[in-house]
Amino acid sequence: MRGFAERAPLAAAWTWLDALPDAGISEVVDLASATGRVLAARIVSHAEPDAAARAAADGYAVRASDCDGANAYNPLLLAFHEPGAALLPPGTTCPVGSGWVMPSGADAVLPFDAAERVGVRSLEVLAPIAPGAGVDRHGHGLPSGLPILRRGQTLLPQHVACLMALGFATLPVLRRPRVRLLVPGPKSGPDILGPMLSALLARDGAVAEPVPLGNAGEPELAAAMSRQGDGPLLVAGRSGVGPDDVSAAAMRAAGGTFVLHGLALNPGGSAGLGMLSGSPFILLPGDPFACLATYDMLAARLLRRLAAADGALPYASVQRRLACKIVSAIGLTEVVPVRMADGMARPVSAEAGLASLLADGFVVVPETSEGHPAGSTVRVHPYGTANSGPETSWP
Amino acid sequence: MRGFAERAPLAAAWTWLDALPDAGISEVVDLASATGRVLAARIVSHAEPDAAARAAADGYAVRASDCDGANAYNPLLLAFHEPGAALLPPGTTCPVGSGWVMPSGADAVLPFDAAERVGVRSLEVLAPIAPGAGVDRHGHGLPSGLPILRRGQTLLPQHVACLMALGFATLPVLRRPRVRLLVPGPKSGPDILGPMLSALLARDGAVAEPVPLGNAGEPELAAAMSRQGDGPLLVAGRSGVGPDDVSAAAMRAAGGTFVLHGLALNPGGSAGLGMLSGSPFILLPGDPFACLATYDMLAARLLRRLAAADGALPYASVQRRLACKIVSAIGLTEVVPVRMADGMARPVSAEAGLASLLADGFVVVPETSEGHPAGSTVRVHPYGTANSGPETSWP
Repeated sequence: MRGFAERAPLAAAWTWLDALPDAGISEVVDLASATGRVLAARIVSHAEPDAAARAAADGYAVRASDCDGANAYNPLLLAFHEPGAALLPPGTTCPVGSGWVMPSGADAVLPFDAAERVGVRSLEVLAPIAPGAGVDRHGHGLPSGLPILRRGQTLLPQHVACLMALGFATLPVLRRPRVRLLVPGPKSGPDILGPMLSALLARDGAVAEPVPLGNAGEPELAAAMSRQGDGPLLVAGRSGVGPDDVSAAAMRAAGGTFVLHGLALNPGGSAGLGMLSGSPFILLPGDPFACLATYDMLAARLLRRLAAADGALPYASVQRRLACKIVSAIGLTEVVPVRMADGMARPVSAEAGLASLLADGFVVVPETSEGHPAGSTVRVHPYGTANSGPETSWP
Repeated sequence: MRGFAERAPLAAAWTWLDALPDAGISEVVDLASATGRVLAARIVSHAEPDAAARAAADGYAVRASDCDGANAYNPLLLAFHEPGAALLPPGTTCPVGSGWVMPSGADAVLPFDAAERVGVRSLEVLAPIAPGAGVDRHGHGLPSGLPILRRGQTLLPQHVACLMALGFATLPVLRRPRVRLLVPGPKSGPDILGPMLSALLARDGAVAEPVPLGNAGEPELAAAMSRQGDGPLLVAGRSGVGPDDVSAAAMRAAGGTFVLHGLALNPGGSAGLGMLSGSPFILLPGDPFACLATYDMLAARLLRRLAAADGALPYASVQRRLACKIVSAIGLTEVVPVRMADGMARPVSAEAGLASLLADGFVVVPETSEGHPAGSTVRVHPYGTANSGPETSWP
């Protein structure tokens, strides 16, 4: 019974995670339900089904050449033609709305305030207009054959709208990773790690398959691990080397191979990584904040890798001044929870128990740093919506 | 038929939106499904059901006074006591795991590497330890009666875990706003605004109730508006003053009152705001990018207000240098879509049709600004995950 003889640098864990192949399994979904999914293939624009030139603004459809030389002192007169007609004869105009198919012959949309009606039959043009002004010539502004979305890109609501307009009905997307989630414990009280991790997995685009284990011993835990499917596995709790830390032993008994166990990360030093039945597993510590921090630093990165994305943290960042110093040990990456108030960040002890779960965000102190003095500016990753705070409460 | 005689500044729209009362209707949900919901009341910490002092780390439970003066040259000897015993007699120690209830008498947890086993009965203590070190004295670090979460706060996965540990089973949350969504149009092709807005509403915590209207005229649209329930209403398209812009007239026919129609916002100049049957409505333009931009600038702000939150944009922000200049008119707030590449932001024309829907983010140029020169640094709001880009791909 002893501490970890050696703890691997966080970078070693990242290198291993980043070298895993992406999930690769794709499925086809209806475009209408594709928001938030990850593209499994590059998307190339189609020819628009209806590629007619359209008005890009409300106004009067005109032949631009009919307006040459017009100004407020020398207005030019055009006759009103039937709205909605297929052809606009020279010397005539008709009102159009944004999105209308332009009548043949017309090549510009004159804004309403560049003209004045004279009675019911005529329009005075008060300004010249360039051919093409106010007209969407390509229909949608996207030439056919253009790569518009890349593999691994997460679909936003407006991407779905764009693809609908281009005539797509379905899309190939990566299957959401199904993550088996084993929680051997706690010894007493409710399981709080299972619900927390399930919600984090859902946030990061995975489907959690929690397996409640109660106060499992090593054999029960090893048996549950052996029933592993083809997706990644998270084990939360009992990851260390204390007297009831059965997770690592159960993993070995189930046939798992560790790449590393014991990380130079605080909190989260007892985390482990490896492969079981051809799929990656991660052991997360049972302390709730350490579990959250290692989920973010390791499991979220694994999910991004499976979705063919880069290893960025699943949080935005803001700059904040420190209300008091952060001390960190060289050789140890530290995740320091902070509260934010009055535009300052104030560290909370990561050993503050449940209070660290209420932190507003966190600062990562890399292993090369001894910390930051009070008053210095640090990068804080807010836990909540990244839009809170002065950086984004525009203007 | 003319343009808007006058366009209200965006600030006027915001002032009106920000003065609306919040939704106020709360409901009680199970804690396990509360992630992402907005708290309807302040939460105060309970006394922990089980408030015993617990080990906060793996190690040896000791009486700190038994270790006074220990060092590697003068180790002090302790006898092993039965693990899990309720009381630790003076001069003894026992191994404990993180989270274990501390045996009575013990007041510190000595790390494994600060001691060495001698045979099976004794432990050499190699370092002194302060009373309380490695012990979570309050059980969870949260005194009873402390306000821990505020009304209007969005619940994160770790908040749910914290409240579970405190013994909460249910929570009062604000009802998700039900937003009726009318899309009168388009004249041809598929409705792309309905799916886009439904996904945006879901992103912002609302429940979209889309009402497909096909190519509705004013009477059908007015009739659909009149069936309005008690939530906000969005009308997408035909918001302007062109020949087929029936939305404003239908709104008046349905009994709606405009606070403003015509905004000094580009794109989005034809947006309108007001009240219908005691609930707020917003008219959004039908051009897809203008619809997206006004949704973000107006509708998302309305939803945040209904959720008792501040008026921040629903996006994070990053600093980027401009690859080419942005020109903007004084008196007009402009939402400029940009593509991001090589650490630079490059404006896309907001009139680029569908291409603007593929922008990586946007820059807001306030009405007091004439724009930004090429090479200057601007704040970009990324549309996708805010964590892409160098600010957050730590380290």
